[in-house]
Amino acid sequence: MGINNIHNAVTLRKSELTVIVWEIVNMTDNSILSGVRSPADLKKLSAEELDILAGEIRSEIIDTVSENGGHLASNLGVVELTIAIHTVFDLPNDKVVWDVGHQSYAHKILTGRCDVLNTIRTENGISGFPKRSESKYDAFDTGHSSTSVSAAFGIACADSLNNEKNYTIAVIGDGALTGGLAFEGLNCAGRSKERLIVILNDNKMSISKNVGSMARYLTKIRIQPSYIRAKSRVHRKLDRFNGVGRAITNTIRNIKNWIKINLLGNRKTMFEQLGFNYYGPLNGHDIQQLQSALKAARYSKGAVLLHVCTVKGKGYEFAEKNPKNYHGISAFDMETGEPKSSSKGYSDVFGEVICRAAENDKRICAITAAMAMGTGLSDFSKKYKNRFFDVGIAEEHAVTFASGLAAGGMIPVFAVYSTFLQRSYDQILHDAALQKLHIVLAIDRAGIVGEDGETHQGIFDIAFLGTIPNVTMFAPSSFYELQKMLLCAIYDTECIAAVRYPRGGELYIPEKYKYDGEDYSFYGNKKAAVLIVTFGRIFSNACTALEHLEKNGKDVCILKLNKIMPINENAVYEAMNFDDVYFFEEGIKNGGIGERFAFLMYQKGFRKNIQLVAIDNFVKQAKVDSALAKLGLDAEGIERTVSDGSCRYTVEH
Amino acid sequence: MGINNIHNAVTLRKSELTVIVWEIVNMTDNSILSGVRSPADLKKLSAEELDILAGEIRSEIIDTVSENGGHLASNLGVVELTIAIHTVFDLPNDKVVWDVGHQSYAHKILTGRCDVLNTIRTENGISGFPKRSESKYDAFDTGHSSTSVSAAFGIACADSLNNEKNYTIAVIGDGALTGGLAFEGLNCAGRSKERLIVILNDNKMSISKNVGSMARYLTKIRIQPSYIRAKSRVHRKLDRFNGVGRAITNTIRNIKNWIKINLLGNRKTMFEQLGFNYYGPLNGHDIQQLQSALKAARYSKGAVLLHVCTVKGKGYEFAEKNPKNYHGISAFDMETGEPKSSSKGYSDVFGEVICRAAENDKRICAITAAMAMGTGLSDFSKKYKNRFFDVGIAEEHAVTFASGLAAGGMIPVFAVYSTFLQRSYDQILHDAALQKLHIVLAIDRAGIVGEDGETHQGIFDIAFLGTIPNVTMFAPSSFYELQKMLLCAIYDTECIAAVRYPRGGELYIPEKYKYDGEDYSFYGNKKAAVLIVTFGRIFSNACTALEHLEKNGKDVCILKLNKIMPINENAVYEAMNFDDVYFFEEGIKNGGIGERFAFLMYQKGFRKNIQLVAIDNFVKQAKVDSALAKLGLDAEGIERTVSDGSCRYTVEH
Repeated sequence: MGINNIHNAVTLRKSELTVIVWEIVNMTDNSILSGVRSPADLKKLSAEELDILAGEIRSEIIDTVSENGGHLASNLGVVELTIAIHTVFDLPNDKVVWDVGHQSYAHKILTGRCDVLNTIRTENGISGFPKRSESKYDAFDTGHSSTSVSAAFGIACADSLNNEKNYTIAVIGDGALTGGLAFEGLNCAGRSKERLIVILNDNKMSISKNVGSMARYLTKIRIQPSYIRAKSRVHRKLDRFNGVGRAITNTIRNIKNWIKINLLGNRKTMFEQLGFNYYGPLNGHDIQQLQSALKAARYSKGAVLLHVCTVKGKGYEFAEKNPKNYHGISAFDMETGEPKSSSKGYSDVFGEVICRAAENDKRICAITAAMAMGTGLSDFSKKYKNRFFDVGIAEEHAVTFASGLAAGGMIPVFAVYSTFLQRSYDQILHDAALQKLHIVLAIDRAGIVGEDGETHQGIFDIAFLGTIPNVTMFAPSSFYELQKMLLCAIYDTECIAAVRYPRGGELYIPEKYKYDGEDYSFYGNKKAAVLIVTFGRIFSNACTALEHLEKNGKDVCILKLNKIMPINENAVYEAMNFDDVYFFEEGIKNGGIGERFAFLMYQKGFRKNIQLVAIDNFVKQAKVDSALAKLGLDAEGIERTVSDGSCRYTVEH
Repeated sequence: MGINNIHNAVTLRKSELTVIVWEIVNMTDNSILSGVRSPADLKKLSAEELDILAGEIRSEIIDTVSENGGHLASNLGVVELTIAIHTVFDLPNDKVVWDVGHQSYAHKILTGRCDVLNTIRTENGISGFPKRSESKYDAFDTGHSSTSVSAAFGIACADSLNNEKNYTIAVIGDGALTGGLAFEGLNCAGRSKERLIVILNDNKMSISKNVGSMARYLTKIRIQPSYIRAKSRVHRKLDRFNGVGRAITNTIRNIKNWIKINLLGNRKTMFEQLGFNYYGPLNGHDIQQLQSALKAARYSKGAVLLHVCTVKGKGYEFAEKNPKNYHGISAFDMETGEPKSSSKGYSDVFGEVICRAAENDKRICAITAAMAMGTGLSDFSKKYKNRFFDVGIAEEHAVTFASGLAAGGMIPVFAVYSTFLQRSYDQILHDAALQKLHIVLAIDRAGIVGEDGETHQGIFDIAFLGTIPNVTMFAPSSFYELQKMLLCAIYDTECIAAVRYPRGGELYIPEKYKYDGEDYSFYGNKKAAVLIVTFGRIFSNACTALEHLEKNGKDVCILKLNKIMPINENAVYEAMNFDDVYFFEEGIKNGGIGERFAFLMYQKGFRKNIQLVAIDNFVKQAKVDSALAKLGLDAEGIERTVSDGSCRYTVEH
């Protein structure tokens, strides 16, 4: 089957692209993609070839994500947009900031990383997010939402101060637009004269369906027939000017004005009110239309907002139909779309417990920042619609809003990934802790999260919450404990009550161990000379280590902290009965529990040996087990540290 | 002079209210204000009496602030608005959330706190901000900007879930509207059916002149003649319906629709696009107009945004003319408007140094979040206009934007109060530290700030920045050190370089002490048994303590940390040569430098005595000296702790 035939077949069936066709294309090794080593190669391709390329890229992405897991739907949505950007602009001189960055796979493929795409999100492989350290084509590292406008505006201002004529592009989803930081960026960048182009990638979704007034407003722009008609007329005009220079600017402006006056009654979009030149809405899967608009944007005076409509999951049937299930996913079977493995996780248990609690107590409200599914709140959102609040990607608002609910007598539970709670530091401190309002923080994905890597590790929550007065924090090591501790947080804790639990499911818990609801528990031989202090998931690894050590004739005891904050003084005194105390902490060392616990022991007169194993830097992507092993927090590492007696070695001077 | 005559005089001269007239009114003791003990009393007053009352309240505020310092201009701007709210709504059943809260003086006066207003911002006095613990009329504590919409929406949702029919009102300035949190709140509250009224107090100012596209947009609404005409017609209609019930709603809606269709070409304000019922702009100094609009707002279905135009500083000539100078001020002379004391502070020195640096290096940019004057950047803003960025009250954006500038090769310096930097925790961690971008944080008002109290103390910066990898932090103890350390942060430090310095001016530095640019210095007898470790402003107090102790025959040495983060290991080793080590820290204990320093000493084998004096809770308002004394961080406290030898006592068990 010759390449031309395949291309023809592909073009014919473009509207119903299937995985199988692209599999075949890949097999031939004659793909267009294989000839694209850098963006320069793209510029040589015809419009038809670019369309085919889009299909090839999709196939590549589906292949990879089905193997490695990752962000599927968002990546499939921006393939044409990415191609259009790379053909119109001159990267790396021009720069693109990908908001959140989970949609950058096509960009990576087109900037020399196609051959290593299969290493994405794996240990030592390329990142699932843009990384300046990975490629000169990655202008700014992203991971958390809503940063792109601010960062891109900063880069654009720097270029302008340096008399560079480059363009900076921020690609931001409508979901990310619900974050206040994005608004702050728009407010500052609007009306600026910099060469800044904000591309609003509007797919009606953040991770779940997008929420809030802005989302409804975008829908309104999208469905206004007169507006779209008018705009498409502009695009037809633009098409004719394809490749023409600054001379067309006036024409465009005149057309725009004419449309505004005659068709739209001088109505302005919110983005125009914020000072942007607005073009849109555009079909985000029509490369030529996108190219025309991007060219026009280059000739605009001042900051531009390009409103591009895309379909999340475009080209992969399962993902198109159910994009929220294909947002960030684990490896899955490409034919059926089913995940390769699935077992009950902490998030599910949280969801069950909070539902049961809400049934019995009408004060309980649940809040999520666009993570209803990820945090296990899907059921709650259906059963207790009135008391369920998806606030969009707005963690700051989530906490201040929760504080308002608490001031009004409700019991708000904010379910949030540890890494995103970093956004709410001031709100927890200033809006909740200061006035002692009772809000519950259900901190999911606490500790190492694995493949998403540095930007998403949940390793800072203990340390930053530890700086705030009036915070109580629990660390369950099993589903049963999560259940008990969550209820304790809701009913028996004042002010800020946090429960932190890891990604994934329950690990090994010895049968002999029983949680009795106390602030701390002992496991093992309390007469031993050696004590391991730990909490949360690491307790499981410590138990395994303890069993190995005991088999080798070394008696060890484990002090498991159930309530890690504030530290129970009796736990400190009891720890002082041992000679060698090893602290293992799945969290950043500076400001962590280990440091504080050790200091308390010292203050109370302990003069024997303490060794602290905790995290002291950002943690790179790798499977959770592998990352924990590298950090010395797996069973083997714990065993090794304890058998080494390194506790005594580190005492220097 | 009878009260009636005074009232007449007052009414006649209403347009040119002067301080003197109100002084006389107060002297008679027959003021209307003296009869207002609670909002209920207000409702009995005639329109004329309310106008007079407004003048009396102004006089009260000017009196108090000239004595105690505080927020003047913002309070003078909302006197009529506050009266209108209290006459139309039924507090404390209905609730008001005052954004930032520095404009709540009139509210305090009208809710039974007039007699104690003279204690405002003093130790054990009432707070300069709303406090739930202070009055049932204070619905939510505020201090930091842009929280009101989120908090009020939370309260409104709680009321609605509890089947209460109360109204919740958020009063937010146009300055606070530049903060992303406010936008997140609007995005979530727009289109809601709750009884939520957002009052936009538009005075064209945040603390300095307001910035960004939103500010320009508001100006546009304000000056659109057709709009204002149309709106005032609505208000005339509304006036006629004064006090009438739900029946008028339809009429109002019809009028509104008619106006929209016939006069405004269906043009919508941004707030309407976000789903709010919009009324405005209104004259914020016309009580009757405000009352009418507030009544209409009560009968609106769903959330309302009321756009009120006020004059910051209204009624006090000096403040009207120069509101930014009268935003937050120290005590001043009422006749001349001159501050009672003024001397050079750290902020001024920062401003001088950064200007000199910028002159020689075109890469240096300065960023402020609406605090150009407070942080000492006024000169910079004039001299280096292109490189000066006032981003509005948007600390998150400030840091991400700075990261963008850094990625573009500039050297951004973000000058910010410690307490507001709390807002940027995730941006520092995720947008700067992770990709090792070099940004400089000039952390002003670090440590105790005094009269603004709990919400504004700069005591968390060390602890929260300490949790983030790749942060270097300097703590100057004198102007000279600030100068040297700032240049070191700019030129000799990688990644995030922070310099923290206190509010106010230089304190005592012994002549014999010389800063040599090293990470740490010793002062005193290095052969002594007792060591004091400290940094920043507390070094001055430690020196005084040392002199007293020496006079009393006790030899002491001081280890002054110049670079407090990361901790220099040699400093730790050198500290281990002493027997009793006292650490004094002007910052929160948990996660602070003291804890970490002590832990490092322990790890390296120190087994003698360590005592840590640091802050372990929120710190209430009081003069800086008094607060430091209470915390044991003044010279006397340090001396007492060291002479007590409490270092040895606290060793328990």
